[in-house]
Amino acid sequence: MQDDAIKAASSIDASRLLESIQTLAKFGARDDGGVDRPALSAIDIDARRHLIERAVALGCTVRTDACANLFFRREGLEDLPPVMTGSHIDTQPTGGKLDGCYGVLAGFECLAALNDAGIPTRRPFEVVAWTNEEGTRFQPGAMGSSAFVDPALLDRYKEAKDGDGITLGAALAAHRDAFSSLETRASQDAHAFIELHIEQGPLLELADIPLGVVTGIQGVRWYAVHCKGAAAHAGTTPMHARHDAMTLAVAVRAEISALAHQLGRDDTRITFGRWTVLPNSINTIASDVTFTVDFRHPDASVLDAFDTQLNACIERHAATHEALFTHPPVTFAPLVVRRVAEACNALSSPSMNITSGAFHDAMYLAKHCPTAMLFVPSRGGISHNPLEATDDDHLVLGTRALAHCLVRLCNEAP
Amino acid sequence: MQDDAIKAASSIDASRLLESIQTLAKFGARDDGGVDRPALSAIDIDARRHLIERAVALGCTVRTDACANLFFRREGLEDLPPVMTGSHIDTQPTGGKLDGCYGVLAGFECLAALNDAGIPTRRPFEVVAWTNEEGTRFQPGAMGSSAFVDPALLDRYKEAKDGDGITLGAALAAHRDAFSSLETRASQDAHAFIELHIEQGPLLELADIPLGVVTGIQGVRWYAVHCKGAAAHAGTTPMHARHDAMTLAVAVRAEISALAHQLGRDDTRITFGRWTVLPNSINTIASDVTFTVDFRHPDASVLDAFDTQLNACIERHAATHEALFTHPPVTFAPLVVRRVAEACNALSSPSMNITSGAFHDAMYLAKHCPTAMLFVPSRGGISHNPLEATDDDHLVLGTRALAHCLVRLCNEAP
Repeated sequence: MQDDAIKAASSIDASRLLESIQTLAKFGARDDGGVDRPALSAIDIDARRHLIERAVALGCTVRTDACANLFFRREGLEDLPPVMTGSHIDTQPTGGKLDGCYGVLAGFECLAALNDAGIPTRRPFEVVAWTNEEGTRFQPGAMGSSAFVDPALLDRYKEAKDGDGITLGAALAAHRDAFSSLETRASQDAHAFIELHIEQGPLLELADIPLGVVTGIQGVRWYAVHCKGAAAHAGTTPMHARHDAMTLAVAVRAEISALAHQLGRDDTRITFGRWTVLPNSINTIASDVTFTVDFRHPDASVLDAFDTQLNACIERHAATHEALFTHPPVTFAPLVVRRVAEACNALSSPSMNITSGAFHDAMYLAKHCPTAMLFVPSRGGISHNPLEATDDDHLVLGTRALAHCLVRLCNEAP
Repeated sequence: MQDDAIKAASSIDASRLLESIQTLAKFGARDDGGVDRPALSAIDIDARRHLIERAVALGCTVRTDACANLFFRREGLEDLPPVMTGSHIDTQPTGGKLDGCYGVLAGFECLAALNDAGIPTRRPFEVVAWTNEEGTRFQPGAMGSSAFVDPALLDRYKEAKDGDGITLGAALAAHRDAFSSLETRASQDAHAFIELHIEQGPLLELADIPLGVVTGIQGVRWYAVHCKGAAAHAGTTPMHARHDAMTLAVAVRAEISALAHQLGRDDTRITFGRWTVLPNSINTIASDVTFTVDFRHPDASVLDAFDTQLNACIERHAATHEALFTHPPVTFAPLVVRRVAEACNALSSPSMNITSGAFHDAMYLAKHCPTAMLFVPSRGGISHNPLEATDDDHLVLGTRALAHCLVRLCNEAP
């Protein structure tokens, strides 16, 4: 059976894989080489039809569920929960060809390679395309994977509206109409999940290592901090009589940044990305400044300490804040992580352990079944950008490693 | 003749003055007690008609010019250049009842008081309502007063468009149509100009002094500073690999603030009022930050030194900047300033010298004829706001001092 894993890896067809990436990128292609494919848009429906036709041609059964996730299944020798792989095919408005799509198409390439090599697996093997991972058309992101794991979330998600006022509920109904012949995947059974993805950061490239064994995902805290001042005339108000909300905001920002570094050391990621200034006039002192805090760390105790010290800092400065989003660090299943590392070794490829700084569908699947991820390098660390790119060799190597893992996981004892 | 100045001051009718302020405020009244009267709008035309009718009833001749300034003239005993007073009646969108209007209506009250007391003056006396001082409908502000002083400016001003695409040229044509019977003030002759205004700042109130003898107007530098970074993922990009445009902007802001204080000492006014952050997303490192600098100081050498050191600071940080507006400090004419101070003394009112932090029509008139200003306190320093207010006693006292000055200036030897 170990031989089958190697055989699967060596059956990956590089040109078929790379061509499939270019083909999918035509759905919503941008003039600048990027892709704009909002979740459940007409373009996304067309792209999904393309995948369904390809899966049917590969002999798969195709199913969907209440959140329009698509499951492309290659049956196993035994009626056991399937090994799943996949990612998403919705993109950022100025997205690239690889974020999400690479994971789904690598899964398809594994389907095709197993067929080509005539390799049966003990368990079924499913490629999944999760709905609305990016969260740009409907908020929050990762709706498909989180609702698969916790179907009760869907009631709330259905009320989410896009920029044109269309609800997710209506978009899901349109998807059902478009694919009314698809069977429903009623159960949530899954033996394991493995997601292959571009790193979207610079670490693999900086280390010149082609494969990243992802051991977990950083925890995150998102806050909005509000600083209140008093609008006043820039010319007539002496400095000592001012209450400048921006002066306060800059001081609070500096203090939060210092405490993030002090608590989190080298693993800290702290970002103040969104700023709203009122009245935002050249000759009026700012009355209100709101800025966001994005703090990430792999250690839950650091995140907790950050919360506590942030609260104290905000209070000390008489500012206010609200929590926008919070997620604990995710530690992936040691067994699946080991299978990923073993795949890298079996292919004689250098690899390194890495903590994901970005969210992924795997973050939610990890609550449901043994889960891990595999990264390939992002050129220049660039992602969410038409310039997003990965060397062809790395894309192929990542898919070979995925195939190896999948066969191992499919064939292992219950 | 000194007696006439006192007589004029004591002939000011407090209730007529205060009532006239309430009456003018009905044109463009807001529900919150403020006024919204854009320059040359239909509401402004109605308000101008009201003033013209009142001036005619007071026996004045009314003239206009190419920039729709209105001149309400009480003839003198001799055919000499007139002493002028006035301000503007356009308002901010969320403006108050006093900014500009107080100066015009105090001028009207002086016209009425001189009539009531039967006081002739040697020179003519003109009240002026300058067009579009606020600069909110058409940019730049102070169009009327600056075009009066330099008529060549008008060609450029006429192309300025409001938010609906209407040019100033078209708005001036509509004004001509509305008041086609008005004579044109062809000459620019003026013996002196004095502008009575609310302080729009807190200094008189903090000092508990009811009259401010304005000796000049601060010089100003407006800049936009651009800081360039690289957009990158907040979760995947290690701190050492970031180029955060906001981190750079905050550092440049701190340095500019420090050099402004160091150069300008207690007279410094430095404001960073407008901020634009791209992509302004919670989980993306900022790629571009632009912020504005508003630096004011009464000393031209300080403003020049600021320019030089700002340039060096920007260069050191590899940022860029552009000058948006610049105006040198204005020193008012000592003779007119003295007349203002003498009026305060003659009324036994405490007064203090003050430098205006705000721009006024007097800033442009000062290039043309001997000019000064007189301030009354603004409650809480608040202006450009429906809450803008000045105690009735202060409004009346300011008008009495204005009447005193005007008579002195009208009657002095050529």
